[in-house]
Amino acid sequence: MSGFILLVSGPSGAGKSTLLKKLFEEFETELYFSISSTTRLPREDEKNGVHYYFVSHDEFQEDIKNDYFLEWAKVHENFYGTSLKYTEEALNNGKIVVLDIDVQGYKIAKKKLQDKIVSVFITTKDKEELKKRLIKRNTDTITQLEKRLENASDEMKELCEYDYLIINDKLDQSYEALRAILIAHKFKTKGQDLDRIQNTWNKGE
Amino acid sequence: MSGFILLVSGPSGAGKSTLLKKLFEEFETELYFSISSTTRLPREDEKNGVHYYFVSHDEFQEDIKNDYFLEWAKVHENFYGTSLKYTEEALNNGKIVVLDIDVQGYKIAKKKLQDKIVSVFITTKDKEELKKRLIKRNTDTITQLEKRLENASDEMKELCEYDYLIINDKLDQSYEALRAILIAHKFKTKGQDLDRIQNTWNKGE
Repeated sequence: MSGFILLVSGPSGAGKSTLLKKLFEEFETELYFSISSTTRLPREDEKNGVHYYFVSHDEFQEDIKNDYFLEWAKVHENFYGTSLKYTEEALNNGKIVVLDIDVQGYKIAKKKLQDKIVSVFITTKDKEELKKRLIKRNTDTITQLEKRLENASDEMKELCEYDYLIINDKLDQSYEALRAILIAHKFKTKGQDLDRIQNTWNKGE
Repeated sequence: MSGFILLVSGPSGAGKSTLLKKLFEEFETELYFSISSTTRLPREDEKNGVHYYFVSHDEFQEDIKNDYFLEWAKVHENFYGTSLKYTEEALNNGKIVVLDIDVQGYKIAKKKLQDKIVSVFITTKDKEELKKRLIKRNTDTITQLEKRLENASDEMKELCEYDYLIINDKLDQSYEALRAILIAHKFKTKGQDLDRIQNTWNKGE
């Protein structure tokens, strides 16, 4: 089977990371978690090559010029990008490539690998709930928090671009949805080798 | 949420009924199992209005003329058909309509409600395995069994028409796939009321 891209977007604070962590625990051997390049500074607990590749603005611009990215986006003054080469390698190895990227990035990625993408938007039931979770997380300044809420409102306008929508109200239900989307897509006809399946079927006479 | 049609095809003996029975047990309140009309004679354990509506050839031809069917098909000299009206009522009530019909029926149904259909083909890994299961089931004469195998080979040529393909080798895995397809489709963006969701999101400020 050829792999596919499970592309997840949604406001920070909606619970994407928690859901993706659970997914990784359950489907570890089948998944390829793409590591993004970014120009933003590492948070205290973040390691280069594990959470992100931390690069300079100049290096990032050079990579854009060289068409190195499946997608890239500018978020809150920083750049984020996903390697096209590593993604394609993983797909050829039959992996499910998990991408956690924003709406801008999704639009660019679609231009390159639309056929391979299953897109999921994960959000809270309302803006108030998102605000609460961001305040609880306590990683943002007031200005950053306001910027995040504003971006979230903009992203919510583009829901219809996504294949699936999960309102992450109850974690267990949201996880059940996300894993179902993953499992279902392993059984998509178009991802399977129909010639081989049909030949095998007829041989067994 | 508006409902959708979970349409399942595949050779008799591949395990469709067993899988659909499990689905019904788990998702009973969400599902609407359509009862087909048929001109074939009831088997010993089959009841009118439960397993099928058993009707005469003349009644069936009249129903076709009146455009009463979402789909109908002739299989092994008998006719089978699904009510369009009951299907639409169930969809409007947000139900997941489960249809167990053959390739011909699927093609006709697509012409009427394509947008609403999620199609799944369930089969065995090869013809030999299907034959074994049919012999074990012991409901067919030799001629019927041969006809079934021939029809199965014809249907296998049309796999690519289906959204999903399940090779029912291990029942547990096949059921995991089928329930994942059902759950995933409940979270399809296009089936959800995006205006309402977006309004709710912005109101919570």
